[in-house]
Amino acid sequence: MELILALDFGGTKLAAALVNVGSREWLRYERRLSPANANAGTDLDIMRSLIHSLLQGTKPSAIGISFGGPVDASTGTVRLSHHVAGWENFALKDLLQQEFGVPVCVDNDANVAALGEHRFGAGQGYDSLFYITVSTGVGGGWILNGKPWRGAGGMAGEIGHMVVDPSGPVCLCGKRGCVERLVSGPYMAQNLREILENEPPTSQGREILRGLVGDNLELLTGQLVSEAASAGDDLAREVLHRGAWGLGVAIGNVANLINPQRFVMGGSVMKSGEDFWDLIQQIARETALPEIDFEIVPAMLKDDAPLWGAIALTEL
Amino acid sequence: MELILALDFGGTKLAAALVNVGSREWLRYERRLSPANANAGTDLDIMRSLIHSLLQGTKPSAIGISFGGPVDASTGTVRLSHHVAGWENFALKDLLQQEFGVPVCVDNDANVAALGEHRFGAGQGYDSLFYITVSTGVGGGWILNGKPWRGAGGMAGEIGHMVVDPSGPVCLCGKRGCVERLVSGPYMAQNLREILENEPPTSQGREILRGLVGDNLELLTGQLVSEAASAGDDLAREVLHRGAWGLGVAIGNVANLINPQRFVMGGSVMKSGEDFWDLIQQIARETALPEIDFEIVPAMLKDDAPLWGAIALTEL
Repeated sequence: MELILALDFGGTKLAAALVNVGSREWLRYERRLSPANANAGTDLDIMRSLIHSLLQGTKPSAIGISFGGPVDASTGTVRLSHHVAGWENFALKDLLQQEFGVPVCVDNDANVAALGEHRFGAGQGYDSLFYITVSTGVGGGWILNGKPWRGAGGMAGEIGHMVVDPSGPVCLCGKRGCVERLVSGPYMAQNLREILENEPPTSQGREILRGLVGDNLELLTGQLVSEAASAGDDLAREVLHRGAWGLGVAIGNVANLINPQRFVMGGSVMKSGEDFWDLIQQIARETALPEIDFEIVPAMLKDDAPLWGAIALTEL
Repeated sequence: MELILALDFGGTKLAAALVNVGSREWLRYERRLSPANANAGTDLDIMRSLIHSLLQGTKPSAIGISFGGPVDASTGTVRLSHHVAGWENFALKDLLQQEFGVPVCVDNDANVAALGEHRFGAGQGYDSLFYITVSTGVGGGWILNGKPWRGAGGMAGEIGHMVVDPSGPVCLCGKRGCVERLVSGPYMAQNLREILENEPPTSQGREILRGLVGDNLELLTGQLVSEAASAGDDLAREVLHRGAWGLGVAIGNVANLINPQRFVMGGSVMKSGEDFWDLIQQIARETALPEIDFEIVPAMLKDDAPLWGAIALTEL
């Protein structure tokens, strides 16, 4: 039986899984947290132990890899990780090809998840789609003409740094009003914190937030912003709606520009409730030209999208 | 000798040209203005007379057509013209295939010009490019993986209605701060007119503009805005720079999203001088992530881009 091995180097966790060619169920599956002071070497050592535990002496016919950071997919070289040191210009494909003696494919997690959703998830049967993940950051991956589109330098999909509000707040990238600055979890938490810090200290009506984080605004997260909004806090709702607005404008702009069939939405922030979804849909529809059709749907593969995408990557 | 016939249905002019397969020079070429009260029928009659004058009894092996308006390229059906009545859901490909008994290909002018620049102009040797035309309107056409990308519904490339300033002026499409609203010729003229109309009537220092249009602001055009800016009028310069800013943000956003090798810029507004070009380059560079490379270059085929693109269309 031919076996395919899938690896997922996330920013904070490592996962590996084994599948029989053509099967849609994992044969074996292992997952481990990346330690706080991880570097490329320790992450690779952990991954090696997962691999050996999965393979149990057998040899796969190919290895597919999802990496949480920019990758040159044509050479299989990691450019860097924003979370873990030591990955700069790391020839991951070459290393593992030599070590295991089988073909290895590597791509970044958004491209790989897009491919996974296209082959096995919410994008099945759709020739053109844009996968968008909204969580700690905002990223995207393209399927066009049924195949990944990575861009001339492998950098396509960076919707997180599309400017949608040039007079908006300053992003880490230096620009104002990037999509990521408006709708990523940490930035929504920061936006709410800043509004609250500027409120008079005796302000009334903040019971919901106080119930969630007490007086310590540092405890605010994207998830708590969305919980507070659901529970009725008006400021949390304002911040969440501003995020949905930014994402909706970006999706509408992308629809005008590329006219894909589907937008497939993944990432933790997309669990922020029906209001959030409805506003994204409405603003995207208003931003796209009336002649341009598209659907915005939730991703299906959840946490396993990178692993299933890594399987699909070996079959390209 | 095999002959290819190229037709260009523009909003205000009609052109046709004949070429030997493989040649880069027109064998014969005809051009006519479309009358002010034109409709689809009169435009077709004019085009027929151009064709018969070109063919002189011979038969081409294929006909390629550039149409100034949305087209369903898969069926060769014109959706509509924004300038000329009677083109609604017009089966142009079927009509001419029956009439001339040869294969016919039709696409919209921006897609066709993109293909022309890719095959014969500033995009030769580039696998991925975005052609942008800035004149009365703002449109675009994609080449990805060396082939036209038209979008799922044939509507890709509508960069003119990308929102770059959500608090900007209202566009005909109903949104605020579209690229076209900021940088198309007629809208730049309107923007300058509105600033001038709100000036005190005795304002000094408007000699340059007065020299161009006297007291009749209705005479202002996009070209006069750019001439006044070159001659040193500060308000004209402000309007032109605002347009360049909008276009630069849009190009940077597109670079982040699709990462094409080249942006090829055509259309009359791109003749607005070095300052205009420099500002577009600067803002696009600031808007794109530092890792993302691209070039912004002028189109090479000028007015003949649709005709050469129509030739390339027959060879796809």
